Amino acid sequence: MSKPKVLVCNDDGINAPGIQALATALKKHFEVTVVAPDKQMSAVGHAITIHSPLRVSEYKIDGEFFGYAVNGTPADCVKLALRSIMKENQPDLIISGINHGGNTSTSIIYSGTVSAATEATFLGIPAIAISLATYGVPDFSLAADYAVRLGLMVLEKGIPGGLLLNVNIPPVPKEEIKGVKVTRMGNSIWDDDFDHRKDPHDNTYYWLTGKLIIVDDADDQDEIAVSQNFISITPIQFDLTAYKFLDELQKWELPQ
Amino acid sequence: MSKPKVLVCNDDGINAPGIQALATALKKHFEVTVVAPDKQMSAVGHAITIHSPLRVSEYKIDGEFFGYAVNGTPADCVKLALRSIMKENQPDLIISGINHGGNTSTSIIYSGTVSAATEATFLGIPAIAISLATYGVPDFSLAADYAVRLGLMVLEKGIPGGLLLNVNIPPVPKEEIKGVKVTRMGNSIWDDDFDHRKDPHDNTYYWLTGKLIIVDDADDQDEIAVSQNFISITPIQFDLTAYKFLDELQKWELPQ
Repeated sequence: MSKPKVLVCNDDGINAPGIQALATALKKHFEVTVVAPDKQMSAVGHAITIHSPLRVSEYKIDGEFFGYAVNGTPADCVKLALRSIMKENQPDLIISGINHGGNTSTSIIYSGTVSAATEATFLGIPAIAISLATYGVPDFSLAADYAVRLGLMVLEKGIPGGLLLNVNIPPVPKEEIKGVKVTRMGNSIWDDDFDHRKDPHDNTYYWLTGKLIIVDDADDQDEIAVSQNFISITPIQFDLTAYKFLDELQKWELPQ
Repeated sequence: MSKPKVLVCNDDGINAPGIQALATALKKHFEVTVVAPDKQMSAVGHAITIHSPLRVSEYKIDGEFFGYAVNGTPADCVKLALRSIMKENQPDLIISGINHGGNTSTSIIYSGTVSAATEATFLGIPAIAISLATYGVPDFSLAADYAVRLGLMVLEKGIPGGLLLNVNIPPVPKEEIKGVKVTRMGNSIWDDDFDHRKDPHDNTYYWLTGKLIIVDDADDQDEIAVSQNFISITPIQFDLTAYKFLDELQKWELPQ
């Protein structure tokens, strides 16, 4: 029996250890195709490249072909993979990651990792985004193993069109993991600040800084679950309609 | 009585006619501050700039101060406005646009116009994103007038935290507008294609092309309403949790 086909993407770039750990772990059970940005693309959100051409090069590790590097965003990579590189050979599943750093609460909105998975859902292909919730020195082995097992389950069970699973792994050894929680997207927000500086020509410039503020600490949220050492899985959709407010808005006497 | 304060942003850049028409129309009823990208930033999604510094310059029209130009994305502009430029003088409302081109169905996911409004909702400030649904020669006057009237209504009525109103205006004269419809985000998708070309050095490169495919033509959708010459207003939220699938996912015997 032929192995199921998986497309692997990320936003940290094709040379990142996270995507390499993921692709390597998947090879036992999947036919793996890697299409990823040729450089770091964190916080690009769902950007796509429409005003400049895209180029694809073969990326090798120790002289061996690893995957396709694209001079674009994560969403570009998935579009190019599905519409060109894998046109005659569509994947059964897309896994994006393993991101170095969590993608929980409002961070999801800025996430290139999640955007790659979202792009796949537009075409009805099941997708998983997976992140290791640390900015410290990462060990991707647990996350890579989890991605393989969850990927196999998603293929077995199926997920509805328009959805993806957003997975966050706590940065602790396996024996410290408390379990797996199905969560909702938290509503922690970034309390942004800007560091004002002067350049050598006395012009002001700004660096974005900030910290995450926990608005609500209910433990069914991704951010909270991960901080308690649970693996967090949130189903995410791309229909952004605020259905609860539709009726209320209908009652407004809107300007004509 | 002092006028309410509005922050105006866009993704077409501070020199675009759409933002200039909007700011000019708003001045009668609002105290207007413009903070916008210094160049075209369409399709950047919810990108933010974290690896390079931001700079702000004063942008003038005919020698008169118009607003602040930022070398960043729409989301950067709103962050910088709220956390620095308008820190002591927070706006009552944010209006993003007027975009040259519609932002309906899955296009919303890629939209810098909507991302600027989304950024505002994180801080609980009411927001409107407004787009003129044409790529032809635009006349922004109807859209600008509608933005003013809807902006005043939003301040009067209030909208729940975490929501914004995404407005699309059909590109027709006022007498051809059929009315105003409260809509949901459509699920039309981009049928992407890539135009393969060879550069003078015989290397392949790709241009993204494609057309919008109407998956479902129910007339309560933004894309369909606008094509029927209705002004479309969709409430959009940033909580992406697929609540309908949470229970189902709880029943899976997820890998531990």
